[in-house]
Amino acid sequence: MDLQDDELTDAVVGSFAGSGSERYKEVMGALVRHLHAFAREVDLTEDEYFTAIEFLTRTGQISTGTRQEFVLLADVLGLSMLTVGLGNRKPKEATQSTVFGPFFVEGSPEVQLGDDISNGAPGQPCLVSGRVLNTKGEPIAGALVETWQADEDGFYDVQKDLDRPQNRAHLTTDADGNYKFWAVKPVAYPIPDDGPVGELLRAGGRGPMRPAHIHFMVTAPGYARLITHVFANGDEYLHTDAVFGVKQSLIADFVEHHEDGKTYYTVDYDLVLATIEETRQ
Amino acid sequence: MDLQDDELTDAVVGSFAGSGSERYKEVMGALVRHLHAFAREVDLTEDEYFTAIEFLTRTGQISTGTRQEFVLLADVLGLSMLTVGLGNRKPKEATQSTVFGPFFVEGSPEVQLGDDISNGAPGQPCLVSGRVLNTKGEPIAGALVETWQADEDGFYDVQKDLDRPQNRAHLTTDADGNYKFWAVKPVAYPIPDDGPVGELLRAGGRGPMRPAHIHFMVTAPGYARLITHVFANGDEYLHTDAVFGVKQSLIADFVEHHEDGKTYYTVDYDLVLATIEETRQ
Repeated sequence: MDLQDDELTDAVVGSFAGSGSERYKEVMGALVRHLHAFAREVDLTEDEYFTAIEFLTRTGQISTGTRQEFVLLADVLGLSMLTVGLGNRKPKEATQSTVFGPFFVEGSPEVQLGDDISNGAPGQPCLVSGRVLNTKGEPIAGALVETWQADEDGFYDVQKDLDRPQNRAHLTTDADGNYKFWAVKPVAYPIPDDGPVGELLRAGGRGPMRPAHIHFMVTAPGYARLITHVFANGDEYLHTDAVFGVKQSLIADFVEHHEDGKTYYTVDYDLVLATIEETRQ
Repeated sequence: MDLQDDELTDAVVGSFAGSGSERYKEVMGALVRHLHAFAREVDLTEDEYFTAIEFLTRTGQISTGTRQEFVLLADVLGLSMLTVGLGNRKPKEATQSTVFGPFFVEGSPEVQLGDDISNGAPGQPCLVSGRVLNTKGEPIAGALVETWQADEDGFYDVQKDLDRPQNRAHLTTDADGNYKFWAVKPVAYPIPDDGPVGELLRAGGRGPMRPAHIHFMVTAPGYARLITHVFANGDEYLHTDAVFGVKQSLIADFVEHHEDGKTYYTVDYDLVLATIEETRQ
């Protein structure tokens, strides 16, 4: 008792000594030391402490099965991209990873190669295709490709009051590793800024915009799961992504086509998986 | 784009450059640097990242108007006591501060000196009294004293399904600075461990017990608000408080009395307020 500041930190770190997990001790010890160092460095006031408690509580309470405000918070603080970088040291041939984002939903519909997954979402038609390959350039047949994206208005299906998914599906690559589906051309959009994270951005003088992108999550036996985006070349927000997620290698051309008075786009992007052995965790 | 780890941290810190508040920039910049340093030090995995997201979400969602799980989390990580220490540099004559805890509720009933605030809660009667003084030892008349505590079963009223408060009230000191009320003798109790914070404690091999105490929050014009406890001397958990809140100077004797075959306790403790000028924030 009567712990002075440094003794207090040591006592809290030491309180985890009885944990059955060395990793838990390591992570919680480091968390406590860095958390306390932060509070000391800024001389955190009690008002700020209570503001943070209230902010975090609302961040949890606004989250639902289809909106993950804590992921959004980690995204705008760069923690998501940092974790992605730490967890995905892989060969340069492999497709780079980026943030998972708050809008993935379990249980998307299964579709066949070439199906239209837009399901009436507003936007210009866009044929998305490519192959799933290994780092030797060989096709991976039977890879599971999950995809999700926003529509022309900048909304994911789960942000709208719909009875069906839009621009969200999963499919399996064919024998040559091909994937292919019709969706809509993605556009730049603001991350949801009607909640705590929006307040944080406004207080920080920051904008909420993300450059246009399509989400992919690709899994195949023996390979490390790939979570990434394909970004639209030329987007004005590529250099100011609110969540720091852009990698040069993930930018692809969305090619405009005109046929019979109609406009559509195509984008072709190969998704290259590293094996589990190639990915140093 | 293509930010490597250190560049990423700089970019996130820099993203707050447009904030209108220098303090906000300072706090958020330090938060991002320490958060990233933590993740790098432990080489945070993506699984651990998602575990943390899910943990924080549930911590928000279990919180209600009468249960504040984020306060509990800050308590068991020692952040609450650290903030209390940083914010309450005051003369040694003043009563020391300790954690606020998760069970304060706005709008407690107003009572008169000598009233019984137990309202039928289980426990042995205990007369709690003392004076509210300034650091010169002079009484402060008209100070607002808020008090709350657990009953003999270790529960606060808000943890039970009640239609009335128990052991929770506020009163005003008389011309001589006196406060006085009947409640029940507090006992050691476990902090609520049926939620995320309980999981954290169990994974850490830590116990949930707090030594017996009575909460006080005292305010008076011109004085810094005092948030503290009075702890029961002899309690077996004084040295292993789950929230690191005990100060030697806050321990008082709860004296046992027998009268007409009945047992009751008395505790007398003066609460000494520092002026706002005496309290360096």
